[in-house]
Amino acid sequence: MLDKVLNAKSVAIIGASKNKTKRGYQAIKTLLSDGYEGDIYPVNPKEDKILGLVCYKDIMDIEGPVDLALITTPARTIPDILKRCGQKKVAGAVIIAGGFRELGARGKELEQAVVTAAQENGIRFIGPNTSGMINLKTNMNLVGIQNAPLGNIALLCQSGNMALTLITEATIRKHEGFTYYVGVGNESDIKFHEYLEFFRNDPDTKTILIYVEGMSEGRKFLQEAYKTSIKKPIVLLKSGRSAAGKRSAGSHTGSLAGVGEVTKAAYARTGIIVIENSDELFPVAETLSSQPPIKNNSIAILADGGGHATIAADLLSDYGINMPELSEKTQAGLRAILPEAASVVNPVDVAGGTDADPSLFADCVKIIINDPNIGGILVVGLFGGYGIRFDKSLAIGEEAAAHRFGAMVKKRKKPIIVHSLYSSHESRALDLLRHYDIPVHDSLDISCKCVASLCQYGNYLKSYHAKTNFVFNWKNKAKKEGNFIIEAARKEGRHVLLEHEAKKLIKLHGAQTAVGRLAEDEDEAWEIAQSINGNCVLKIVSPDILHKSDARGVKLDLGSEQEIRNGFRQIMKNGLAYNPQADIRGVLIAPMAQKGLEIIIGTKTDELFGPVIMYGLGGIMVEIMKDVTFWVLPVSPASCRKMIEETRSSVLLDGVRGQNGYDKKSLRKLISICSELIESYPDIEEMDLNPVILHEQGLDVVDARIILKK
Amino acid sequence: MLDKVLNAKSVAIIGASKNKTKRGYQAIKTLLSDGYEGDIYPVNPKEDKILGLVCYKDIMDIEGPVDLALITTPARTIPDILKRCGQKKVAGAVIIAGGFRELGARGKELEQAVVTAAQENGIRFIGPNTSGMINLKTNMNLVGIQNAPLGNIALLCQSGNMALTLITEATIRKHEGFTYYVGVGNESDIKFHEYLEFFRNDPDTKTILIYVEGMSEGRKFLQEAYKTSIKKPIVLLKSGRSAAGKRSAGSHTGSLAGVGEVTKAAYARTGIIVIENSDELFPVAETLSSQPPIKNNSIAILADGGGHATIAADLLSDYGINMPELSEKTQAGLRAILPEAASVVNPVDVAGGTDADPSLFADCVKIIINDPNIGGILVVGLFGGYGIRFDKSLAIGEEAAAHRFGAMVKKRKKPIIVHSLYSSHESRALDLLRHYDIPVHDSLDISCKCVASLCQYGNYLKSYHAKTNFVFNWKNKAKKEGNFIIEAARKEGRHVLLEHEAKKLIKLHGAQTAVGRLAEDEDEAWEIAQSINGNCVLKIVSPDILHKSDARGVKLDLGSEQEIRNGFRQIMKNGLAYNPQADIRGVLIAPMAQKGLEIIIGTKTDELFGPVIMYGLGGIMVEIMKDVTFWVLPVSPASCRKMIEETRSSVLLDGVRGQNGYDKKSLRKLISICSELIESYPDIEEMDLNPVILHEQGLDVVDARIILKK
Repeated sequence: MLDKVLNAKSVAIIGASKNKTKRGYQAIKTLLSDGYEGDIYPVNPKEDKILGLVCYKDIMDIEGPVDLALITTPARTIPDILKRCGQKKVAGAVIIAGGFRELGARGKELEQAVVTAAQENGIRFIGPNTSGMINLKTNMNLVGIQNAPLGNIALLCQSGNMALTLITEATIRKHEGFTYYVGVGNESDIKFHEYLEFFRNDPDTKTILIYVEGMSEGRKFLQEAYKTSIKKPIVLLKSGRSAAGKRSAGSHTGSLAGVGEVTKAAYARTGIIVIENSDELFPVAETLSSQPPIKNNSIAILADGGGHATIAADLLSDYGINMPELSEKTQAGLRAILPEAASVVNPVDVAGGTDADPSLFADCVKIIINDPNIGGILVVGLFGGYGIRFDKSLAIGEEAAAHRFGAMVKKRKKPIIVHSLYSSHESRALDLLRHYDIPVHDSLDISCKCVASLCQYGNYLKSYHAKTNFVFNWKNKAKKEGNFIIEAARKEGRHVLLEHEAKKLIKLHGAQTAVGRLAEDEDEAWEIAQSINGNCVLKIVSPDILHKSDARGVKLDLGSEQEIRNGFRQIMKNGLAYNPQADIRGVLIAPMAQKGLEIIIGTKTDELFGPVIMYGLGGIMVEIMKDVTFWVLPVSPASCRKMIEETRSSVLLDGVRGQNGYDKKSLRKLISICSELIESYPDIEEMDLNPVILHEQGLDVVDARIILKK
Repeated sequence: MLDKVLNAKSVAIIGASKNKTKRGYQAIKTLLSDGYEGDIYPVNPKEDKILGLVCYKDIMDIEGPVDLALITTPARTIPDILKRCGQKKVAGAVIIAGGFRELGARGKELEQAVVTAAQENGIRFIGPNTSGMINLKTNMNLVGIQNAPLGNIALLCQSGNMALTLITEATIRKHEGFTYYVGVGNESDIKFHEYLEFFRNDPDTKTILIYVEGMSEGRKFLQEAYKTSIKKPIVLLKSGRSAAGKRSAGSHTGSLAGVGEVTKAAYARTGIIVIENSDELFPVAETLSSQPPIKNNSIAILADGGGHATIAADLLSDYGINMPELSEKTQAGLRAILPEAASVVNPVDVAGGTDADPSLFADCVKIIINDPNIGGILVVGLFGGYGIRFDKSLAIGEEAAAHRFGAMVKKRKKPIIVHSLYSSHESRALDLLRHYDIPVHDSLDISCKCVASLCQYGNYLKSYHAKTNFVFNWKNKAKKEGNFIIEAARKEGRHVLLEHEAKKLIKLHGAQTAVGRLAEDEDEAWEIAQSINGNCVLKIVSPDILHKSDARGVKLDLGSEQEIRNGFRQIMKNGLAYNPQADIRGVLIAPMAQKGLEIIIGTKTDELFGPVIMYGLGGIMVEIMKDVTFWVLPVSPASCRKMIEETRSSVLLDGVRGQNGYDKKSLRKLISICSELIESYPDIEEMDLNPVILHEQGLDVVDARIILKK
């Protein structure tokens, strides 16, 4: 569907100009100098010719079809121009101008007018507030960035400066380039997930590189990302997580930035390689584009000096990557060709063994790459610089090694990543490595991150689960009685369910927990209490009293008739004292929960992704240790297990220090029920089960709160 | 004392050679080509002249005095050479050869022989297993790294490759250089702390840059670092923290790597700027060498594009740096000169305002730098590249701005740090910035880290505490009775104090806790129990039973005569059943501790720093949440407060959710007592108070274990 936009065979430049400082001039000049394969139609009522091309007074004057309009005129002119484009049956537009929603209410109105005009005229558009778009395959450069290298990375970027940064970096690194660049801008029409779908299906794109500040259709993006990352890697940096960052993103594209922890976890679960440091963004995409993923999370380091090896080993450990000791056979093989001082365990340090003949690097790599426990090799140090630093003659051995590196990667399907201090120097050996699609880095930190991303992607492909598709089937299991509960609250004008209503709802969907019963008078209270085995808890029930403890509306551990009757009376009295106008429905009488492990489960509606669920240790610890995990709903039973395992406190559930463990099966079931509940009742805005007390067998939902959408 | 070594006025090259591949040739060549200001004496019995210089058969043949000997011969030759040097009254040596302790036991022996020979002959030496040393002020280049730039950073490095990396980086960055480089090597004679002391007193050194894998005199290093960092910043990367990293460091220099968490915290407390990523090492040192520290932890970002600003804001937030909204006055000032679309809050986005005239950057900086809430400015984006990317004529405006930047830093003593995508291009404006000592970075991540380091150093200088000097006064408060307890254990051949002995010892130094009394028979047990107000805990006392619970040797909460007597009998029986050979001294009867907050205090002897103390939340949580902090002993009362505040759980001590807080004063006192105890009895290897139960008033040391040195 975006084919005519991104692969346009003809472009009209609306706002074409003879003024060299204008975008309408630069665009034409760039298309000509880059050698765009399609037709170029300048449009400007005041000009006859621009840069040797016929300039049309009006888009309708163009004889041939026009796929795409590059609109370089100011914001206020856009709606009318889109109408004219519609008449010409233009398929797509790139709208450069800023001055829309990022400026506030007035800009937002204008942006809506642009969207409406586009929709009415059947035009899909990129932007506004964008630096433009480049198709490097057809040399359709609508940005003006010079010399962007062709390659196999599709670049989706919400900042023109970041695009310039990444393209500049690609040029300096002399290895990998781009299929497309799209400046997403305000994302008013074509959304992130649509570009993603397009790039997934583009045969020339091997990796998708995304810089995002905020997006409007988070869940659809997750769905498309999930479908895409199993086919080709997505590398993404999400900024705007801090207060100052949000301020900046807001003034930049007017996007929703989302909550940092939820967003990052959600992206990672779709298989996206989420990057935190912008320096790593391009090198990681380059690596994933050019090297096979690592399948066993294990790497060997080959070094010609201790310091680099030690630093790399630390960093890779931090990333959770294994550096197993090499097998006996591998060690013996290395020992046979390296000097006595060499370390052959892993990291391997050649200890001067390559000084006289750097082709020995390839001998080492050959021995190591055949070790079955090793999934890939990181070479660190001076490789590629022996000819520069020591003696020109050594360059020959380096070049020979580079050729063999290339052959070995191809044959063994295990990646080689090279760190070289001489990466930015002229080195034939390093150029050969690049030719063989072996990335070369001058930064140790970044080489390690690239190794980590190959492991991360390999791990994802291995654990890929075809059911985590982020598709939400609203109402798929709603129950009549559940709808009654919600409707009853709605009828009373409430958007909060009372505690026993909330508990009834989760019980209705299979939670094994006591709801308790509502007592309207003291006699009823005692009657209910007698039906309960053991002591009771009494809680006030009133739509006007949300914080029951504040109103002194909770009494714990009551047993005797006197305790129950006194408790009932006091709670009713306290409630009225707290709020004389309160509509008090009575007192909920429920069994006192046994001691156990306090946990908390909550759901809320995220601005970016819709319904999400939180799980973690409850009580005071949740506030202090923040040992919680957020997942986008719905969650599968397998996901429930992973959610629990993700928290540091999960070991508590297995029982520590000789204690018995807790009922993880019931816990997983309760999380599944929450997921089902949110899918069943679209009215629910958020839900809070806090605390839930876990036992060796079973659990108790001690308090439950459900808030409906307003 | 190291003056004659590091500032040597004459150098003898032992192992001088005519063979171009030999170190003994290269060293002479480099000294000549670099223009070393002192005398050069080649020494080799087989040569008469090398590179035009007279070659001496023996060092004794040299007429003039020799300050320093560069020894390039193999390991086994070193002890004899040192003796010859001693006869010549040589002050220092640089020993290049590897093949010592990093190779294991045999090498260790040889290394000891070298140390002995040096000591006996009054020679201080650098290395062995080092790439050498450079004094850039006198062009005494004993390494062979070419073109290292002169500047004001002293480089102390435990890896030749890392030194090469850092020096290469300095060359590429074209701004800051070095006073000295020392390859520390195996640190057999001159230690890290001695170099530190030398550089502290060197007037040309402004910053000290250290790469360390391991060191032998950790505590002395802390003491010197503490004295140094108040005068000039120390930037340090410590590698070898992971298992694979330790393996690598061990095979590299045979050093003790130390425990990661203890080491990092210890360094940071001396004011050292500890770096985790090697890419940041040089830029941070460069920044601290050239810009004033930030005094109020607050920064403003000035950007010419949203993306860079958003990313920088996120990173700086992660570093805990404030980006306050600019004052009304500042905002008004910016609004007056910037276009409507500009954001003037912080980050400031000029939104195209500098496109026509980049000298506007300086106007913006001038307005922002006068905002009293702002401690420094980070400029991000394309500055320095307007003349390259857009139009040559714009370079003039950039240069004008650069001059004004320089003047403003000088006048306002607030730093300006510049990120520029064009940092590696030829840009006069950026060269001017470097001239004015304003660092320029092409990495956003690294610019932010540099800003963070200026804040960190500024914060340290503000909070500097003249008493945290890491000096340990052994035995300063030892008590006679305490020595008796330890001697008694020693006499019995024990290296573990029994529980009541350990408790007595801490009580002796002022801890307010019950020790309990030892009952040898059932009657005595009941007698002691009667003297206790409330229920008792009974615990087996035996030097042969360390894990009392495993032996079922603990009974809690006993009150009645029957309970006490039964308890005593059962414990004795269980103990014998557990270990029939056990020497059971009886049963300790102590008051049952009230409920409260479980915490843990421990001390141990770190291989690097000596005695350290750990504090954290106790119970199961300590294992799971690892919410503990490690400090090098001794700790001052102020440090005790900080230790507690450093843990996330410290808010628990203040009382949360309406609970009362706990007795922090008693806790601080107990930590002080532990510090005093370790200082008083050098025999103590480690101590464990676990758990300690904190109350609203007071605390109970429930169990105490003290292990003596073997």
